Amino acid sequence: MWLLYQFPLCPFSRKVRLLLAEKGVGYEPVRESPWLRRDEFLDMNPAGETPVMVNAEKPGRPMIDSMAICEYFEETVDKAAMINGTAADRAEIRRLVTWFDVHFYRDITRPLLTERMEKRLVLRTSPDSGRLREAMKAAVAHLDYVDYLLDHRQWLAGSTISLADLAAAAQISVADYLGGIDWKSHEQSKRWYLGMKSRPSFRPLLAERMEVIAPHADYEKLDH
Amino acid sequence: MWLLYQFPLCPFSRKVRLLLAEKGVGYEPVRESPWLRRDEFLDMNPAGETPVMVNAEKPGRPMIDSMAICEYFEETVDKAAMINGTAADRAEIRRLVTWFDVHFYRDITRPLLTERMEKRLVLRTSPDSGRLREAMKAAVAHLDYVDYLLDHRQWLAGSTISLADLAAAAQISVADYLGGIDWKSHEQSKRWYLGMKSRPSFRPLLAERMEVIAPHADYEKLDH
Ligand SMILES: N[C@@H](CCC(=O)N[C@@H](CS)C(=O)NCC(=O)O)C(=O)O
Ligand SMILES: N[C@@H](CCC(=O)N[C@@H](CS)C(=O)NCC(=O)O)C(=O)O
Repeated sequence: MWLLYQFPLCPFSRKVRLLLAEKGVGYEPVRESPWLRRDEFLDMNPAGETPVMVNAEKPGRPMIDSMAICEYFEETVDKAAMINGTAADRAEIRRLVTWFDVHFYRDITRPLLTERMEKRLVLRTSPDSGRLREAMKAAVAHLDYVDYLLDHRQWLAGSTISLADLAAAAQISVADYLGGIDWKSHEQSKRWYLGMKSRPSFRPLLAERMEVIAPHADYEKLDH
Repeated sequence: MWLLYQFPLCPFSRKVRLLLAEKGVGYEPVRESPWLRRDEFLDMNPAGETPVMVNAEKPGRPMIDSMAICEYFEETVDKAAMINGTAADRAEIRRLVTWFDVHFYRDITRPLLTERMEKRLVLRTSPDSGRLREAMKAAVAHLDYVDYLLDHRQWLAGSTISLADLAAAAQISVADYLGGIDWKSHEQSKRWYLGMKSRPSFRPLLAERMEVIAPHADYEKLDH
């Protein structure tokens, strides 16, 4: 049995969860709040970050880093290949995964998590409205790029769904939960995201709640 | 023919160059200074980062992100496998690559590059000695971790050399060029790094210079 250390609004854990669900790999989510810096968790992962996956039968060898975890399941489970196509296609998928994991996260998801989650749960101060505005402005630029990709391709990295779509949807879903996404004038991205939300792999994520923090009004709607 | 857009002190380009040399893949380095934000470069890579690789015969499809590039050559060139072993071994290699690319870079290489390169070349101000001290303190902690790994393993990720060693050596070599590494009381790491420096794949990197910025005294020495 696989254990997945995560919290509901961790976008990297969401990417892994989407992949596991698409591939039909079962796992038990274990709640971890990395900001608490629990000693036992730091012993498992010196980076102190979620997600971490542990094979309950071999607890001594945790798997760390969402991309390493995704590559592992891509290599070991044939069903629903998500890093697929030629070597060049695979490079394009990996480029986009990094784009969303690094740039979208740094510009949008991370500041939203800091301002709307950590300041509420941990620091008990009010969010900085300037930083929120900046994140929402960055989200417009990022959705423009998603629109541009979808002008040229059916899915983000090419003609089939891939880990790039899961990585993007994972980041966007957390930003959307926190009210950071305005779909206005992003029809292409919106249609693609509604398609992602309608997948069975997405349902458990949409139904989950982060304590204290309620999602944005349309977060769970499949026609919005 | 492959073109590699890079500058001499880019640690991610160094990781790619080490891999290409180990695998015997030829390439032409093309000098790119990402801080100049050249329009033609941004058209190629919206992230504006080095390294980028372009197949001169198919210039329309640049390869972006050092990990995506490394995975590509690992998949297409059998010689000198660097993401090798079981799926779990491969996950450990990828975890460590991310560790050095993200954490070592953020704590050490990036601040050293900002203080000792960008402030000199671009901003024309003096380095912040507090930030330099912090980076050098972080380097001690990181070398402690490398020592710890080498207490348990012959190479950083296991019993054979892997991309984890190349990623670590790439970051360390840039930090060492900029005088950020003190090898004192890190005998294990030092011995491993001297071994890395002695590899033919490392030679061209050691011989190269960044304009204006001279390397630290022992940077090129193979017995130091
Ligand atoms: N490269 C890692 C990044 C993971 C990451 O940044 N996780 C965040 C949570 S979303 C974290 O644990 N941050 C540390 C903290 O909050 O203290 C991955 O892809 O797994
Ligand atoms: N994830 C990228 C990171 C590359 C990166 O951060 N490159 C730095 C140079 S070392 C860069 O181009 N930064 C942008 C800048 O300096 O403006 C990779 O692994 O290729």
